[in-house]
Amino acid sequence: MALLVIGGVAAGLSAAARARRLDPRLPITVLEKGPVISYGACGLPYLVEGRVRTPEQLIVYTPEYFRKERNIEVRTGTRVVSIAHPRREVVLESGERVRYERLVIATGARCDSAGISGVNQPHAFTLHTLDDAVRMRRFLAERRPRTAAVIGAGYIGVEAADALRRHGLRVTIHERSQHALLRDDPQFTDAVRKQLELHGVELRLGTAVRSIDELAADMVVLSIGFKPNTELAAEAGVEVGRFGAIRTDDRMETNVRGIYAAGDCAEVQHVVTGRPTYIPLGTTANKTGRVAGANAAGGRERFGGIVGTSIVSIFGMGFGTTGLSAAEARAEGFSPVCARIEGRTKPGYFGGGTTAVELVADRATRRLIGGSVVGEDGAAGRINVIATALQARLTVEDFEGLDLAYSPPFATVWDPLLIAAQQLVKEF
Amino acid sequence: MALLVIGGVAAGLSAAARARRLDPRLPITVLEKGPVISYGACGLPYLVEGRVRTPEQLIVYTPEYFRKERNIEVRTGTRVVSIAHPRREVVLESGERVRYERLVIATGARCDSAGISGVNQPHAFTLHTLDDAVRMRRFLAERRPRTAAVIGAGYIGVEAADALRRHGLRVTIHERSQHALLRDDPQFTDAVRKQLELHGVELRLGTAVRSIDELAADMVVLSIGFKPNTELAAEAGVEVGRFGAIRTDDRMETNVRGIYAAGDCAEVQHVVTGRPTYIPLGTTANKTGRVAGANAAGGRERFGGIVGTSIVSIFGMGFGTTGLSAAEARAEGFSPVCARIEGRTKPGYFGGGTTAVELVADRATRRLIGGSVVGEDGAAGRINVIATALQARLTVEDFEGLDLAYSPPFATVWDPLLIAAQQLVKEF
Repeated sequence: MALLVIGGVAAGLSAAARARRLDPRLPITVLEKGPVISYGACGLPYLVEGRVRTPEQLIVYTPEYFRKERNIEVRTGTRVVSIAHPRREVVLESGERVRYERLVIATGARCDSAGISGVNQPHAFTLHTLDDAVRMRRFLAERRPRTAAVIGAGYIGVEAADALRRHGLRVTIHERSQHALLRDDPQFTDAVRKQLELHGVELRLGTAVRSIDELAADMVVLSIGFKPNTELAAEAGVEVGRFGAIRTDDRMETNVRGIYAAGDCAEVQHVVTGRPTYIPLGTTANKTGRVAGANAAGGRERFGGIVGTSIVSIFGMGFGTTGLSAAEARAEGFSPVCARIEGRTKPGYFGGGTTAVELVADRATRRLIGGSVVGEDGAAGRINVIATALQARLTVEDFEGLDLAYSPPFATVWDPLLIAAQQLVKEF
Repeated sequence: MALLVIGGVAAGLSAAARARRLDPRLPITVLEKGPVISYGACGLPYLVEGRVRTPEQLIVYTPEYFRKERNIEVRTGTRVVSIAHPRREVVLESGERVRYERLVIATGARCDSAGISGVNQPHAFTLHTLDDAVRMRRFLAERRPRTAAVIGAGYIGVEAADALRRHGLRVTIHERSQHALLRDDPQFTDAVRKQLELHGVELRLGTAVRSIDELAADMVVLSIGFKPNTELAAEAGVEVGRFGAIRTDDRMETNVRGIYAAGDCAEVQHVVTGRPTYIPLGTTANKTGRVAGANAAGGRERFGGIVGTSIVSIFGMGFGTTGLSAAEARAEGFSPVCARIEGRTKPGYFGGGTTAVELVADRATRRLIGGSVVGEDGAAGRINVIATALQARLTVEDFEGLDLAYSPPFATVWDPLLIAAQQLVKEF
């Protein structure tokens, strides 16, 4: 039994580490095409900002660590060019062949700038790897750009805009859809826009950029079209789903026995819809990697699915979402009931501000199916409570009865979550 | 139909307001024995500290507000001395009789200093009403005490110690049991002690005070023996349970039809044990008041019970608990499995500290049955996630799979809650 993992960032290394824990003797090899492994990709905007001072600060583990401490062989700069599954081997760029018995595919995703011309110019950037961020920092230091255009108002786009604005640039975000942060929710997008504008960043919705030359900006950041890297997998007969990501079962095994997939290249089950979805996030990458690694090592673990919880800071304000917005729920065939409130996070004498909470429930089952929280204070904790409720399939009445902590330094006696729940009950 | 409510603080006013919402024409009267209504009792330590500058700041609503805006008659300084339920009337101290058809008893609780002598001296205080806090403040200003003894290491005792220490006093807390914050958990109590000591407050456990004269302190705060006020109710034939608080069903109705009880005088169901419990907290008072008021007004609402979630700030550090500690679980007949970890709350470049998380599960059902969180950052959000999991009856595996929000300004990719869950799974 030998385990081979393709990809050495979040999912791949989680898989390798978990497999090692379950089987101390299993030969495990990780092949990473890039120069480094185990970097916190979600920290890249903060490397651009300068809060993270050196790329090394974002590297959690080195290949040496894995070799010495975990007895896992990690090879960087090692690109797999094909998988010959009948022979249980992969072929490297160098021509070398590496054998396996079980394979975990954690090839991640890439920025899909197809359809936009001029993306190879020196003032155009993606923000996907440490090298991307380093190159952007160098450009900022050497070329002193005064304006930036960010294409895409997803997480990375908005975080990059925040980072560049803090460097003093005039920043405009161009988003093709009508939604910010991938949330089909006009009011949430409005809150994002307001916060961006308050800090001097313009958000233009419904603008499709065809060429970066049409943007009169000293630099351009492409943060669009997260496209799962599935070409290798496809070659081995591994199926992809409707989002173009690798289909897996709840053990993270693909349709080809012995081949597992995890992280940004794989679909997962959405707990609310009960259907596969593609929401590439670091948390899910780590969790699915763990499960894939466990099962590839002979364990029996299952991944229970996601509810798509995320949070982004925009100039200090937290924007959290989980589950479905009302519009998304409608598109999935639910009949959504929705409440949106603003509430105080703490008594005035503890300097509490307000937070906006939105809850979405299904009219038929009264189950909570989504929510969002916007606030400077406690947004992460609150969105996590909603996420927990979604995964536990709580009804609005269950949620209204939650026994949440209260004392003045931390909360109000009726937490905004509970006020939203009371409002939601009235909407039925 | 006339509704009478005895008690005009959290539970009583919630009941009256909720009844009014369900029935715009119902005659509603609230009788409050004290001089003011609707004060935030949980804010009293901060009035002593000085962060809350005037008692008025803690008063949310006035009798005038209720009269004008809600058409609810609220009479302060009006003590009920007996209930003549067969005639559906209460007798006031003045001899006046007030009729009712439905009655909500929200008489609260009192500090039970029985067994301690000398409590009526001018340097002895309780911290239960606005007057108590005002008297304490005056004493601090006029007498400039240099030392304080706090009897009882419950929420109010610890908060009072924090407040007095900030006034520069040398403070010692004397606690009869071996537990701080009412939690039978040696390690949690240890964390409380450490934080108190770090800020110059001494915590003496296992010390029963018999007379306040034996304490060489310039002032003494009694924060012991929360005793439900049930004498009036008992007279009307209302039963009390094993904790001495009024027994209610899930509609907050007592054994006497037409008489409801809510707040600090009433028992509630514990979701984890499935049995009645007595954990007087402001959140529960408001919630049970709402349910009692709704049902007294002819509605049909139920109270789903509590898990006993609370949080206290000790010199800026949050101490949150919910459900049962391992020792408490054992006493309730569970076979507890327990994990305790320390984890980072955020990446270092966002200044995250560490937080301690403890999770307790039941060996037989694998259900999560309790937890605690200690940390400066995010303790409220984390204890609320555990509380939600308890109410939703999640297993450790469910909890391990929670899809919690992550981005560097808010969290680590593996939240300490999930790290604790992984540890807990290993303990089975």
